[in-house]
Amino acid sequence: MTISEYGKKQLVEEKVFKDPVHRYIHVRDQVIWDLIKTKEFQRLRRIKQLGTLYLAFHSAEHSRFNHSLGVYEIVRRMVVNFQEFEEWNNDDRLLALAAALLHDLGHGPFSHCFETIFDTDHEEFTRKIILGNTEVNEVLKRVSVDFPLEVAKVIDKTHENRLVISMISSQIDADRMDYLQRDSYYTGVSYGNFDMERILRVMRPSREEVIIKESGMHAVEDYLMSRYQMYWQIYFHPVSRGGEVLLNLALKRAKHLHETGYTFKQAPKYFIPFFSGEVTVEDYLRLDEMVVNFYLQEWIHEDDPILSDLAHRFVNRDLFKYLPFDGSVITISELEALFEKAGIDPDYYFFSDSYSDLPYDYDRPGSKSNRRPIHLKRSNGELREISTQSAIIHSITGVHRMDSKLYYPREKIMQIEDLEVKGEIINLLNELA
Amino acid sequence: MTISEYGKKQLVEEKVFKDPVHRYIHVRDQVIWDLIKTKEFQRLRRIKQLGTLYLAFHSAEHSRFNHSLGVYEIVRRMVVNFQEFEEWNNDDRLLALAAALLHDLGHGPFSHCFETIFDTDHEEFTRKIILGNTEVNEVLKRVSVDFPLEVAKVIDKTHENRLVISMISSQIDADRMDYLQRDSYYTGVSYGNFDMERILRVMRPSREEVIIKESGMHAVEDYLMSRYQMYWQIYFHPVSRGGEVLLNLALKRAKHLHETGYTFKQAPKYFIPFFSGEVTVEDYLRLDEMVVNFYLQEWIHEDDPILSDLAHRFVNRDLFKYLPFDGSVITISELEALFEKAGIDPDYYFFSDSYSDLPYDYDRPGSKSNRRPIHLKRSNGELREISTQSAIIHSITGVHRMDSKLYYPREKIMQIEDLEVKGEIINLLNELA
Amino acid sequence: MTISEYGKKQLVEEKVFKDPVHRYIHVRDQVIWDLIKTKEFQRLRRIKQLGTLYLAFHSAEHSRFNHSLGVYEIVRRMVVNFQEFEEWNNDDRLLALAAALLHDLGHGPFSHCFETIFDTDHEEFTRKIILGNTEVNEVLKRVSVDFPLEVAKVIDKTHENRLVISMISSQIDADRMDYLQRDSYYTGVSYGNFDMERILRVMRPSREEVIIKESGMHAVEDYLMSRYQMYWQIYFHPVSRGGEVLLNLALKRAKHLHETGYTFKQAPKYFIPFFSGEVTVEDYLRLDEMVVNFYLQEWIHEDDPILSDLAHRFVNRDLFKYLPFDGSVITISELEALFEKAGIDPDYYFFSDSYSDLPYDYDRPGSKSNRRPIHLKRSNGELREISTQSAIIHSITGVHRMDSKLYYPREKIMQIEDLEVKGEIINLLNELA
Amino acid sequence: MTISEYGKKQLVEEKVFKDPVHRYIHVRDQVIWDLIKTKEFQRLRRIKQLGTLYLAFHSAEHSRFNHSLGVYEIVRRMVVNFQEFEEWNNDDRLLALAAALLHDLGHGPFSHCFETIFDTDHEEFTRKIILGNTEVNEVLKRVSVDFPLEVAKVIDKTHENRLVISMISSQIDADRMDYLQRDSYYTGVSYGNFDMERILRVMRPSREEVIIKESGMHAVEDYLMSRYQMYWQIYFHPVSRGGEVLLNLALKRAKHLHETGYTFKQAPKYFIPFFSGEVTVEDYLRLDEMVVNFYLQEWIHEDDPILSDLAHRFVNRDLFKYLPFDGSVITISELEALFEKAGIDPDYYFFSDSYSDLPYDYDRPGSKSNRRPIHLKRSNGELREISTQSAIIHSITGVHRMDSKLYYPREKIMQIEDLEVKGEIINLLNELA
Repeated sequence: MTISEYGKKQLVEEKVFKDPVHRYIHVRDQVIWDLIKTKEFQRLRRIKQLGTLYLAFHSAEHSRFNHSLGVYEIVRRMVVNFQEFEEWNNDDRLLALAAALLHDLGHGPFSHCFETIFDTDHEEFTRKIILGNTEVNEVLKRVSVDFPLEVAKVIDKTHENRLVISMISSQIDADRMDYLQRDSYYTGVSYGNFDMERILRVMRPSREEVIIKESGMHAVEDYLMSRYQMYWQIYFHPVSRGGEVLLNLALKRAKHLHETGYTFKQAPKYFIPFFSGEVTVEDYLRLDEMVVNFYLQEWIHEDDPILSDLAHRFVNRDLFKYLPFDGSVITISELEALFEKAGIDPDYYFFSDSYSDLPYDYDRPGSKSNRRPIHLKRSNGELREISTQSAIIHSITGVHRMDSKLYYPREKIMQIEDLEVKGEIINLLNELA
Repeated sequence: MTISEYGKKQLVEEKVFKDPVHRYIHVRDQVIWDLIKTKEFQRLRRIKQLGTLYLAFHSAEHSRFNHSLGVYEIVRRMVVNFQEFEEWNNDDRLLALAAALLHDLGHGPFSHCFETIFDTDHEEFTRKIILGNTEVNEVLKRVSVDFPLEVAKVIDKTHENRLVISMISSQIDADRMDYLQRDSYYTGVSYGNFDMERILRVMRPSREEVIIKESGMHAVEDYLMSRYQMYWQIYFHPVSRGGEVLLNLALKRAKHLHETGYTFKQAPKYFIPFFSGEVTVEDYLRLDEMVVNFYLQEWIHEDDPILSDLAHRFVNRDLFKYLPFDGSVITISELEALFEKAGIDPDYYFFSDSYSDLPYDYDRPGSKSNRRPIHLKRSNGELREISTQSAIIHSITGVHRMDSKLYYPREKIMQIEDLEVKGEIINLLNELA
Repeated sequence: MTISEYGKKQLVEEKVFKDPVHRYIHVRDQVIWDLIKTKEFQRLRRIKQLGTLYLAFHSAEHSRFNHSLGVYEIVRRMVVNFQEFEEWNNDDRLLALAAALLHDLGHGPFSHCFETIFDTDHEEFTRKIILGNTEVNEVLKRVSVDFPLEVAKVIDKTHENRLVISMISSQIDADRMDYLQRDSYYTGVSYGNFDMERILRVMRPSREEVIIKESGMHAVEDYLMSRYQMYWQIYFHPVSRGGEVLLNLALKRAKHLHETGYTFKQAPKYFIPFFSGEVTVEDYLRLDEMVVNFYLQEWIHEDDPILSDLAHRFVNRDLFKYLPFDGSVITISELEALFEKAGIDPDYYFFSDSYSDLPYDYDRPGSKSNRRPIHLKRSNGELREISTQSAIIHSITGVHRMDSKLYYPREKIMQIEDLEVKGEIINLLNELA
Repeated sequence: MTISEYGKKQLVEEKVFKDPVHRYIHVRDQVIWDLIKTKEFQRLRRIKQLGTLYLAFHSAEHSRFNHSLGVYEIVRRMVVNFQEFEEWNNDDRLLALAAALLHDLGHGPFSHCFETIFDTDHEEFTRKIILGNTEVNEVLKRVSVDFPLEVAKVIDKTHENRLVISMISSQIDADRMDYLQRDSYYTGVSYGNFDMERILRVMRPSREEVIIKESGMHAVEDYLMSRYQMYWQIYFHPVSRGGEVLLNLALKRAKHLHETGYTFKQAPKYFIPFFSGEVTVEDYLRLDEMVVNFYLQEWIHEDDPILSDLAHRFVNRDLFKYLPFDGSVITISELEALFEKAGIDPDYYFFSDSYSDLPYDYDRPGSKSNRRPIHLKRSNGELREISTQSAIIHSITGVHRMDSKLYYPREKIMQIEDLEVKGEIINLLNELA
């Protein structure tokens, strides 16, 4: 791939963005500067990095724009450090930077809910935006006619350059290193702090991937523990997931109403492609969190009592209650049947939420995981999979931890008219608590 | 005023919010807890603390909800510290806390622009929301029938209890102490850091106001300097104001179109009360930043080229250029005439923006300011106005600093067809640069 | 025990110490204030918290005075939080505070080395200082005639009040919580950061010990990981231990010289009680790091070449080299024999250093450990040992990790005259590397 | 000057020191690495950066070694930034780095006191150590026979390269930028925080000096205010100066005793050259804070009651009391006479301490100052003295602020036997308070 003059163009003076996590984000390439200015990239300002987490941690209101700049900056620093190693080919520099910047381009509003309800896939849309008729594609094409495809292949991990892929997506990549620190900064917790400066210093390029100098093992342990804590303390916070539950149910209801011919007071025009499962890139890009919130606020005033109630609950943070749930006391279908008997529609007023996390693992014969290990490089050049060296990491390797919660509207339970059913449900919930 | 049992009710277990600025926000009063849950207070999550500043500092995406909790927490800590002084009457505790929490309740989306274009006033709406038919009013009334009015009077500074007012609104109050630190944290700059712990330790209640123990003078100097730096480095950032300029012009255009009978593709129903100048509390509360952004995104697709262009510019951050401007080279009306001659409508493609700041002042005979001084309390009990004691503060007292900028669309200038006018304008702009 | 009026006396105005770790240290009790002013407590300013660690982390120069205030402050905050629980008896408040402040009183300069070479015991001296003819004893006695003994018993863990003991010495106590954070702050690493605010919030007093509310489990996980990382990354740093090795050998040499009748140019008067094994409290208190360093600087000028060399090496940081060593390639006695053959005295130019850590454990039938578990308290009041609840903690429970290093003077090896022996030693060292 | 191969030698792998202020200190030059290892540089570990300030801020225990590495690191970063400007001659790189590292080499223990009492000058000793028979000189000479002199001339500001001098000594230099931040970090106050990252970004080399891009004006304002606050809040803290007062008086007494033939129990051999005013480089280097403290601890046991008392007071922090003093109520000599009358020797039990600060100034016709201004560089290349551009800086330019305190031993006053004199003195002191 020949890179055009444009692809090599440097800004006369470096541009910097003040950033609370990395102090400054440095931009010197005209291409990067132009990518940031595209409307598809600017759109990421209107999508929160952490979806509904602001309902649990009020200060977590930052956007994916924020995070994307951060990932770019980390990769930029990796590239600076890699200069002195022959395993690094500097022709890949712009590819790595552009892929880092754009890796989340296809995220939509509250991606998890949308992907569940409407069967969309943000990775697929990242690819489509990069390759489609967009400002981002326009900029990338000016570097080289193949450049958009190259960037897309790095992001969807099909590129033959495994090293560049691993800088952006692996078990210790720029993406995770940015979000752990950034989400920690914004939520105000200390769990996401680890010594990234040290990790950057011990990262070494190889033909296959980024590897870690042996002396950096403890810094990686610390990073993996940060990751573990952030998942269980922050990302899986049941209040945040309770927000997602409501959004899920509201979208499901709106889709159902649309399918059954309900006439909305405020026609949900931007949702219709999603309801019908035929979403173009243009449709997709239009739907940011401003739009979704607008409709949810509108739906409060709809005649359908379920949609109106769910929308109100989401907008005004009137969340369902939750309880731990493992299916041992009663099964979900039994519970649903009980709710139905009590006159509460379990399709919209009952939600069983499961989530799990695997802090670190790698693919082994017979294992289901498809993850590349983190490798330590000894002073004699040998590579060792990190869990063979670290007792701490060994202890968490391959350990799936799961949890699940049951969400339900407490005040609806309290209003059940059939006192027997009401008593039965209340007893059950007490038993679960 | 007799406070009801409800007004005295304490939560069984203290609730805390993790906060990156104050570590934790502590809530023990049922009233405060209930106020936070109201939909009017939750609405503040949908209004950014710093309006368009995210266009200059990408990480400044925090909401007024965030800040309001912070102001509450600072006042809560003041009250704890004041317990041991007889000048403090603990009957005012709940009043101070509620007023702190609710002081920004009436802020709308991008308040500055809205107030300019639609002649609304967020302070007036704060009062109306507190006294009107709202969930907030409902909660406050349960404390005492007079309580909503008491709270409103503290916020609009007409309450007879000057001490409580000064905790929330004065030249060294909880409001400023929170926003300087919070905005500093979110933008990632260090300018807003000052030693609030020390200031809280040296604050003393008096009948009239909060005063400062003499030994705290340097901490106040530092605070005032922080404030000064934040204004000039952050709040007045010309890129942020450039965003406001576009919003201003777009709203002005939409209003004009409405008044001249234009038919919008997407009827701006929530704007109509604002266009017509008859805004109820309900109308007001509906209009948050989600809604405003939704309409701006809609307006991109309007037929009116000016509205469409201005909306596109705002949404996609395609800002006007700016130059320093003091009127010495050419006047605004002369420039406007030139633009008109060049076929560029100066009503929508030209904006002269002025701003000024007075870091510290106090009302003196003949001065126009209406500000109470910061008083230092000597060990013998005497009060001294702080600028008589601090050379640094003396040097900034009463010093108005002003600046102004001219905003214009560069590429429209470059497309002027009449080459003579084009040359004249370009020369002028170069002279201003 | 009746507490005197003096024991209850509060300062008219709270005193605060600015502290970088806890922001401020708050003192309100006259007793605490007076204890801080005693010369035995002031002496802790002349003993570094981390001994020779400054040789590895230049910024770790803080004293035990620093840390002792920090432990006091944490216990003070525990006591504030415990007020609302009936399991807490506020009569124990002063006991807890005094024991926290004084818990390290008996530390001498470079305690580890001194205890190894001179067979002293800092815990025993803490007790002796508290009970002896000292200013500290004077102050404590004014509280009650039994008070010194009470305090000493808390510190040496023989007091019947297990709760107060566990606040200061347990697997999650004020001592560790302070030093992890403090040592992290001073070394500039992030490993020691954990959410102490959260841990303090979830600590609950019980009759037996401090227990942890179940919801605080993750914060404890994070704390234990911090502890683990600090040990392996910081406290066991081989450069720091290399400083201790030199000090060890120099002291051993000086003692040997003294015993064999060598006449020192500068008579080591303060060391003589240590050489002869009869150390009074007064002797002990005299020997701080200023004095030890003074003598080491003097010893550089002694005629004995070994003492002079070792002292020079310590003072001017001319450390031995080190290698990992596990005894598999060659045994220590074989190596010593080789050194001897080469004309290098292995008593002073060879050191095998082992260290191990047990991040968390508790006493079980058959286990050698004598540690009380950390207990989680469920909402129904039941206690659970924490490793039964946390997979991460389970994985590290009872896991002893050991390491050892071999220290030797490289340039002495290079100067060995017998080329065969030299070659043999060099080959061996290369094999170990 | 031709630089030898040694002078150009780079370490195979960069060495880093973990530093809490600059994260890491980076060393790549063999020369710098070797300088750090010299015993003269290692000696700076035994001299506190802030002398007696630890008596006021317990956590301020860091050494000049610490600070010297920090200044080196800042200059290293300046040099990296200057690479792209033609005004920078990279041949000066090593000169700048070495001068930065060594600029404080001649500081002795408690320099201020020593210079007052013994008429030594740390700048003169820096020069002598660099040019004398030392390990530092040895290393520098290997770069080039002229190199030691070059380095010395940069440090004493006589070098013809004004740019390099200004990087290390000017009103906005690496020295101050390090110590403000470092002292702030260690004391735990926030006053010394300013945006050094920004200042480094706006610094530009010129033939004459480092200048500041106009857009950096606010960052410089913030820096100057930090400096101002640190002086008045930290460096001039009367408790710290009270420690210096005692040290001053004790040294003065010891010198007097020596001169009058007193026989010390512990002969103060290292002090004798200072007492007699004939101090060689070797004498000077021997006297670090370990040694001074050792002698002060010894002097407690001397027979001379004044020396013993002063030494005890210093070692055990039994400080004099202080009062503000401006000479208006009574003159110093009148007070001294009164003390004499009361039987208190004013030579050793009375001290009038004055200090003043000039936050910013520059030499103008008729001004006494000899300081180069800070220059801002406008976009058109013109230089402007900064106070003509910044109202805040203008307000503090040339403003000398002074203060003075009177130190005296309160309990000696309380023990005066002549009740009339005692009353007179107490009344006077009350009047001063």
